[in-house]
Amino acid sequence: MKKTLLLAPALALFLGYAAISQTPAGPRHRVVFQLSEPEGPAWSSLAVHVNNTMKSLADDGGSQVEVVFYGPGLSMLTKSSAAYEEPLKQLSDKGVKLLACRNAMKMRNVKTEDLFPFAGQVDSGIAEMVRKQEAGWAYIH
Amino acid sequence: MKKTLLLAPALALFLGYAAISQTPAGPRHRVVFQLSEPEGPAWSSLAVHVNNTMKSLADDGGSQVEVVFYGPGLSMLTKSSAAYEEPLKQLSDKGVKLLACRNAMKMRNVKTEDLFPFAGQVDSGIAEMVRKQEAGWAYIH
Amino acid sequence: MKKTLLLAPALALFLGYAAISQTPAGPRHRVVFQLSEPEGPAWSSLAVHVNNTMKSLADDGGSQVEVVFYGPGLSMLTKSSAAYEEPLKQLSDKGVKLLACRNAMKMRNVKTEDLFPFAGQVDSGIAEMVRKQEAGWAYIH
Repeated sequence: MKKTLLLAPALALFLGYAAISQTPAGPRHRVVFQLSEPEGPAWSSLAVHVNNTMKSLADDGGSQVEVVFYGPGLSMLTKSSAAYEEPLKQLSDKGVKLLACRNAMKMRNVKTEDLFPFAGQVDSGIAEMVRKQEAGWAYIH
Repeated sequence: MKKTLLLAPALALFLGYAAISQTPAGPRHRVVFQLSEPEGPAWSSLAVHVNNTMKSLADDGGSQVEVVFYGPGLSMLTKSSAAYEEPLKQLSDKGVKLLACRNAMKMRNVKTEDLFPFAGQVDSGIAEMVRKQEAGWAYIH
Repeated sequence: MKKTLLLAPALALFLGYAAISQTPAGPRHRVVFQLSEPEGPAWSSLAVHVNNTMKSLADDGGSQVEVVFYGPGLSMLTKSSAAYEEPLKQLSDKGVKLLACRNAMKMRNVKTEDLFPFAGQVDSGIAEMVRKQEAGWAYIH
């Protein structure tokens, strides 16, 4: 009984420490990219930037990456941007989530069938980036 | 007395947990937007983006939003940009803080009376966004 | 012995608190700026923005600042941009780290000797900004 009393505080300390130090399962780094520009340098450099970032973080615990497309940037994720299908599909095949903003889809009259088949959707692109930052993701624009 | 000794570690654990899990009062989500561009798409889409974000977060604990105006973006918050007064006033009426950077005001010779009456002011727009991020706000540019 | 049993939970609580409240040594505020634009307003306003930010944070615990140069922004940190050497050197002399992205250097065939002598280097500019955000730095673009 005396022993129990002595161990209890140590247990409390350990549990407190465990609560602080616990990390989410999966890759160590998590990054959300914003793609809101019309066609131009932001589109042509996206795949290079994401690939370089993932390569750099690969030896350091790995990374989970999302790209949020909204505003004029939504068009990059539609079938009308055929030149970008292959580099975007390669990102998707590596596990990068490519997400269209439904608000932008409504405003620009883009239907689900207009998007590349590997595109995901979120209710609001900005709200998605807010939630990710709150969950500890880094934000890059 | 023995009972007290047994309860004390549990209390320590509980207090430790409470210290970790306590959240600030008010809305669950907090977002600071940067508006530093000259007149163009960034101006015309600002109200839509803020409104969509707040609507999306309304069902999820609500949001507190600030927009920081500096650089060429400061002009959007001045009476010379009459076309933007109504949408900005509507944001202000919803509780969105619209803040002019005093460094930008000095550099561009903008006086308090040149700003829309609902505009607030901060010493440095960038320092404001730094402090907000440090306080757990999401940052959107 | 009884006394020890009573003190142990208090110690556990104190250690838990200390673990939560400990802050890194050095300035209170830490900011990483992104400079990825071609020559234009982003270049000409950089030193003003960094200086104003540091001035504003000086009375509030001080700041540590980094600027990450990549994409078309890398050129600002090369000797070919002679007009920017003096303002950038002044930032460097104040302790601001000016960092070139090695991925951008490879892509744009920029050698170490092409950079201003006060320039530092990082493997990936974006990965650097990710790591800084993860370490609690504010991010400004």
